[in-house]
Amino acid sequence: MLRLYYAPGTCALATHIALEEAGAPYEAVPVDFSSQKQRGPEYLAVNPKGRVPALVTESGTLTETPGLLLFVAQRFPDADLAPLEDPFALAQLQEFNSYLCSTVHVAHAHGRRGARWADDTAAIEAMKRKVPATMTECFELIERKLLKGPWVMGGQYTICDPYLFTIGSWIEGDGVDTTKLPRVIEHRRRMLARPAVQKAMAAEGTQIS
Amino acid sequence: MLRLYYAPGTCALATHIALEEAGAPYEAVPVDFSSQKQRGPEYLAVNPKGRVPALVTESGTLTETPGLLLFVAQRFPDADLAPLEDPFALAQLQEFNSYLCSTVHVAHAHGRRGARWADDTAAIEAMKRKVPATMTECFELIERKLLKGPWVMGGQYTICDPYLFTIGSWIEGDGVDTTKLPRVIEHRRRMLARPAVQKAMAAEGTQIS
Repeated sequence: MLRLYYAPGTCALATHIALEEAGAPYEAVPVDFSSQKQRGPEYLAVNPKGRVPALVTESGTLTETPGLLLFVAQRFPDADLAPLEDPFALAQLQEFNSYLCSTVHVAHAHGRRGARWADDTAAIEAMKRKVPATMTECFELIERKLLKGPWVMGGQYTICDPYLFTIGSWIEGDGVDTTKLPRVIEHRRRMLARPAVQKAMAAEGTQIS
Repeated sequence: MLRLYYAPGTCALATHIALEEAGAPYEAVPVDFSSQKQRGPEYLAVNPKGRVPALVTESGTLTETPGLLLFVAQRFPDADLAPLEDPFALAQLQEFNSYLCSTVHVAHAHGRRGARWADDTAAIEAMKRKVPATMTECFELIERKLLKGPWVMGGQYTICDPYLFTIGSWIEGDGVDTTKLPRVIEHRRRMLARPAVQKAMAAEGTQIS
């Protein structure tokens, strides 16, 4: 039995959805961010980074969404969530997920967690002001170049789709004009129709429309 | 024949080393950052993100270091650069490399490229001031928890090692006190002794001591 530590509204939803899609045996355990439980000794023993997601497996604990998603795809190959035997195609998945974690999620985080990168209040406010521009730039690249359609990688639904869906659910809050992103919004609708997505969202009490 | 686009002093060195370790047939093509060639139409046709590295393969172009490193490991399996058949172990590699790209490289970038995340000069200066603290925090976690030794993943040299070596070569410039990181520095020395590392560095004209 796998154990996923998550908090609602975070990127942990991507792994939560992937576990559902894979039909994996797992339990989902919420970490209460409102009482800073992610910084408490109990959770730091699970994940010393003090962040979610973390996935406790039979072999040990894993963190970082691109790692977790690859694990789910490779551990449950019957779900066919990644082209595991094709080096180029699999690298394309990791390329997309790396872009989400290192550029897109980071751009978003400057609106909420600027204190990670500067101590001064005015600097943190300056970072917040730029989030609509940086997130728009990221999602325009996704809209124009990266999202092949109907799924991220084209015809095959993969571990890139729950990750794009999750980060893409933040863009209205980040001040992005979604009327210029019809393909991203269509992808969201397609995701919302999947039972695995509905189940993971219901379990987290997350609403995305 | 693969083609790696790189610039000296960037994270492209990680893929450059991995290609050497794999004995891959490739050519390395420098992109002149001093004349902003990475933003010119010729390079944007290769990589619309305007960044290095990019790897042109027989199947198309790949970007993002964790994707490139996985590609090299899977495309040249005889070099044994990753535990390709073990879902947990392979996810651990992706976990480590995701941490480098999404947290460590990002912390470093706030010292040089703060304009990505704020427009205001004072905010960019405030970001620079925090780099020694954030990079120290990252490398203390690597020193204490993530670097198993002698290589990142323990006994097996993997695609995590050139990536740690590359980002780790920036820490003195980022104001990190390396006397508290003996295991990281020992890892650097071990890397500098490898012919593949020496060859990639010489080709780039990069000096790391």
